[in-house]
Amino acid sequence: MSGGLHDVLALLQERSAASLAELVDFASIPSVSAQPDHRADMARAAGWLEQRLRRAGLNTVEQWPTAGHAAVYAEHLEAGEDAPTVLVYGHYDVQPPDPLDRWKTPPFTPTVVGDRIYGRGVSDDKGPLLLTVQVVDAYLTATGTLPINLKFLFEGEEEVGSAHLDALVAEHAERLGADFVLSADGGMWSAEIPSLTVSARGLAALELTVRGPAKDLHSGRHGGSVHNPLHALATLVAGLHDDSGRVTVPGFYDGVSDLTLEQRGDLRELPFEDAAYLTQTGAPALYGEAGYSTLERQWHRPTLEINGMWGGYTGDGSKTVLPSEAHAKITCRLVPGQEPGRIVELVQAHLQATLPPGVTLDLRPSEHGARAYRLPGDHPGAVVARRVLEDLYGRPPLDVGMGGSIPVLETFQRVLGLDTVFFSFAVGDEDIHAPNEFFRVPRLYEGQRAWAQFWHALGHRGDHE
Amino acid sequence: MSGGLHDVLALLQERSAASLAELVDFASIPSVSAQPDHRADMARAAGWLEQRLRRAGLNTVEQWPTAGHAAVYAEHLEAGEDAPTVLVYGHYDVQPPDPLDRWKTPPFTPTVVGDRIYGRGVSDDKGPLLLTVQVVDAYLTATGTLPINLKFLFEGEEEVGSAHLDALVAEHAERLGADFVLSADGGMWSAEIPSLTVSARGLAALELTVRGPAKDLHSGRHGGSVHNPLHALATLVAGLHDDSGRVTVPGFYDGVSDLTLEQRGDLRELPFEDAAYLTQTGAPALYGEAGYSTLERQWHRPTLEINGMWGGYTGDGSKTVLPSEAHAKITCRLVPGQEPGRIVELVQAHLQATLPPGVTLDLRPSEHGARAYRLPGDHPGAVVARRVLEDLYGRPPLDVGMGGSIPVLETFQRVLGLDTVFFSFAVGDEDIHAPNEFFRVPRLYEGQRAWAQFWHALGHRGDHE
Repeated sequence: MSGGLHDVLALLQERSAASLAELVDFASIPSVSAQPDHRADMARAAGWLEQRLRRAGLNTVEQWPTAGHAAVYAEHLEAGEDAPTVLVYGHYDVQPPDPLDRWKTPPFTPTVVGDRIYGRGVSDDKGPLLLTVQVVDAYLTATGTLPINLKFLFEGEEEVGSAHLDALVAEHAERLGADFVLSADGGMWSAEIPSLTVSARGLAALELTVRGPAKDLHSGRHGGSVHNPLHALATLVAGLHDDSGRVTVPGFYDGVSDLTLEQRGDLRELPFEDAAYLTQTGAPALYGEAGYSTLERQWHRPTLEINGMWGGYTGDGSKTVLPSEAHAKITCRLVPGQEPGRIVELVQAHLQATLPPGVTLDLRPSEHGARAYRLPGDHPGAVVARRVLEDLYGRPPLDVGMGGSIPVLETFQRVLGLDTVFFSFAVGDEDIHAPNEFFRVPRLYEGQRAWAQFWHALGHRGDHE
Repeated sequence: MSGGLHDVLALLQERSAASLAELVDFASIPSVSAQPDHRADMARAAGWLEQRLRRAGLNTVEQWPTAGHAAVYAEHLEAGEDAPTVLVYGHYDVQPPDPLDRWKTPPFTPTVVGDRIYGRGVSDDKGPLLLTVQVVDAYLTATGTLPINLKFLFEGEEEVGSAHLDALVAEHAERLGADFVLSADGGMWSAEIPSLTVSARGLAALELTVRGPAKDLHSGRHGGSVHNPLHALATLVAGLHDDSGRVTVPGFYDGVSDLTLEQRGDLRELPFEDAAYLTQTGAPALYGEAGYSTLERQWHRPTLEINGMWGGYTGDGSKTVLPSEAHAKITCRLVPGQEPGRIVELVQAHLQATLPPGVTLDLRPSEHGARAYRLPGDHPGAVVARRVLEDLYGRPPLDVGMGGSIPVLETFQRVLGLDTVFFSFAVGDEDIHAPNEFFRVPRLYEGQRAWAQFWHALGHRGDHE
């Protein structure tokens, strides 16, 4: 290990308490991008991040405005033209904390309990993002230089589908040029076994409103003579899947390749137990598309999920209302071969075709979609990542898929022509998007070491080859 | 017309502005029985009513506590043992005002616009209730006496199924004895044509919760591998009706008699137009059980309606959640031959039998139910009501049914052996249980005249026979 890297790692260790305190500070800002009420908090989080990057000693730190929430950009390009250039990606926005009453500690009062820190966004993505800034700070403090050229792009709209990042990346395409993207977002598959995420599902989303009478009616007086939008919505939603768990939307599976025997074999090798998964999720049983295993369903099969459904009286007690409207939010997870825009069209057409009589349908397709993503196995970033993870954890990482989506991956590939290597130290069981989200504190430090080693190894690749 | 009645009507006319101002005052109290937050307002409304009854000069005024909200009781029994005794019924509680953003004027700031007063509860049931107190006040002020013996029972739990009234009526059965009940709750079928309500549907209610994973999950990561409670709920709800609009619950229609040819003929005579009904409700089309007309569906056929359905993320923007729970509230409207308790059992059994795999079901039957009700055509109260309405409106009232339910009717019949004559001056189009509920101001005064004439006519029935 070179002296420079040694000093960086020593400094990071020295700063471990300060690193955790910084995460508490960062995660206490309720940067909920989906909720207009939190617009000022979003600006506060962007400002916090900008100041932190400046303090790290980076040459250039900027906020890049968008039509929505600003992105924070920074760069330090002094390793020379022959050195690799890496674009670090992450996001400082977080999911809404609802349902609030299910949190054991307040979502925006990050709380350390044993080896875990609880709070909205600590795992997705503030902890994994922040550690990259802490590493660059340590590198510049300890050695005065960096082994590679680094660019940082932290967006504020990942949790709302990265709505304006496409335009932003196109606008700044020249400055964002790099050899590949190294993503602090993502998350490993298990806390015990290192893994490298090589695929992510895509995303297509829409919202629907079923309308009946022009106003809420008394369900006693009017019940039975006009259609209840809640009944019609239930019929529509129930008609989106068949009894075998397959999506019934015509054309939904067009272009989707079935898994190869080799893929199925690789998945079976993974240390995944259905029983342990049920314990982890607390679900009473597994359920999904017939003919596929749990990991196949999560990583390689497309899905259609209702994320929210509501209408009528939902408060305490009873209210005998026949409501004028009923609503649902839908997202589809996509695999290679599916186009987000086309999938939204197909779902809309199916909903219109299966609409019960007596109501009307209002569809709002989301602008935000993403194609599925696959990282080439021999990608230089993947090769370095495997080496670093094996060094850190004593065993080579597993290649795993990701059920979720990061729309920006598709943007990086399409607009910048760049692949993305996931290098997050979050773990998939950390209740992101749910109450009591947590991040494992030791992995904050493991992540710091790994990122320092990654940059070092990438910068000195020529030395060994 | 006797001099006494003439003086009463003159005094009521003199007091018309004061009567309306009193309704504004009464309806400004947010006496929402369903919501625990409004407990103090409920007590305030009961106190207001108690004071108003005292001011009317009634001999006895009491609050009767229940395990829930108190009832207000009053009596004036000086017409002698040979004079008829009438028990006046009404309720001072109101429906929740949700959705608040659909009100054009604040629900608890009663606002007169033209001939209408807008506000939660003005039609159901504070206006129709209050006018009976104003009439007894005018009677006692103008004549010092009443033509009949009067008892008043105003409950505070009608909008939550009259949960504790059954026990209360049983407890005070002796004091509540009367010849029949005259109900200020109910409502006429049309503002133009007088009507006498001779039937009401019964009620059976339950709430269901579908549970999946123990906590909310990320729908990207987990979607497709565990069942989404929202999908399962939609399947359950969609399975409660068939394509012809019939309830699919086995046994639901057992004991239900089909309409007679005579009933169907009577209904066809009524001046009811489907087109006008669609305009009134703003529904895009009629919808209901195949083979029945709109009025048949509303008055003589049982129904099963979802009053509320919710789960997952329902706020602004998107949240890619696979929720741990999904909920629905169900009410059934019943016709003669159906037992509320039995219907709840049948619905529960059907939901359990049709529950999709991968989720569990939690059922909460409501304690509150009511059998359907029918008033005998030659009932003395009905005979007097017809005469008064014909005198007031220049034409005999139509016999009509009521789609809604008043559980207390069943209580009065079972516990006290009393029939109930509906004599409300609310109209069925006044958006009760919905935003912008209103009451027609002229009908406040017509109702006062009618109640004064009803009591007079009933007290002097012997004079004419």
